[in-house]
Amino acid sequence: MAHRVGTSGSRKRCILGVDPGLDRTGYAVLQTDPIRIAEAGVVRSDSAAPLPGRLVEIETGLSDIIDEHAPELIAVETLYSHYKHPRTAILMGHARGVVLLAAARAGIEVLSLPATRIKKSLTGNGHAGKAQMQKAVAHALQLREVPEPADVADALAIALCAHETRTNAAALAGGAR
Amino acid sequence: MAHRVGTSGSRKRCILGVDPGLDRTGYAVLQTDPIRIAEAGVVRSDSAAPLPGRLVEIETGLSDIIDEHAPELIAVETLYSHYKHPRTAILMGHARGVVLLAAARAGIEVLSLPATRIKKSLTGNGHAGKAQMQKAVAHALQLREVPEPADVADALAIALCAHETRTNAAALAGGAR
Repeated sequence: MAHRVGTSGSRKRCILGVDPGLDRTGYAVLQTDPIRIAEAGVVRSDSAAPLPGRLVEIETGLSDIIDEHAPELIAVETLYSHYKHPRTAILMGHARGVVLLAAARAGIEVLSLPATRIKKSLTGNGHAGKAQMQKAVAHALQLREVPEPADVADALAIALCAHETRTNAAALAGGAR
Repeated sequence: MAHRVGTSGSRKRCILGVDPGLDRTGYAVLQTDPIRIAEAGVVRSDSAAPLPGRLVEIETGLSDIIDEHAPELIAVETLYSHYKHPRTAILMGHARGVVLLAAARAGIEVLSLPATRIKKSLTGNGHAGKAQMQKAVAHALQLREVPEPADVADALAIALCAHETRTNAAALAGGAR
């Protein structure tokens, strides 16, 4: 857990990457100057509990992280058109809706990134496999081990790609910050 | 719009049926003793706005209705496994997640009803078509015209079925109230 700081002035600039899921929502708070993980983990919901209560668990968990770190940007993966398991995808949609709601309630900009762009940004290959992505995340952040569980690695990859996207956009605009 | 009342003691017992959708979330507040529509309508979100803000519109709209009527039960349709348009279904999942979150945050029980049960409860036929369902809703509520748009008719059907389900459960339990 990151050290909780009292005022927004003393907070480091950071980006929050989120990989929403009903069972596990992976998150990664990435400080951007210099790049380091401030906090990363998983918000779990009780699979034995009714769905409305599980969504409250996800929303509360994410809002706590947002309150603590005050990210300047929240990044998620863009929806795609084809999912192998439609029912699971719809339940992911419930979790994603609650995550986006928490972001909007906190007044934080949301950046939605295509999976292929995230993969290409980390590995140079828009269709990289899971293991290759995990290794690339560990390499980019100079971690000794591959981050576990996979939801955390995914959230770190999203945050890293969001940071790169932002930096490139600033460079294209000819500009600082 | 229903008359806003100041204390929960003066409120009539009611059930809120909701048909969640990103563009339009149909809702129906059904008073149960005697049965009549207290309020029904649609919460719309601005299709030109970014998704997080649209979810805030849905959540705010639903929470206002919940606060005003204090329903004892919120009823929605159960998810099914096969949707014609998976991406639309996932976006519906975002709206449904936000609706269920609003219900849980208000501490109100959620009842999830299969589409076939709703149809059978209103028409006797678990596979009734949309027009047949709309006529059945108008008949059950002694409305002169079929409720429009379809989202409102769907929300009314859900609320009517939830009321029937509750009444039957109370009868089976040998029960008063």
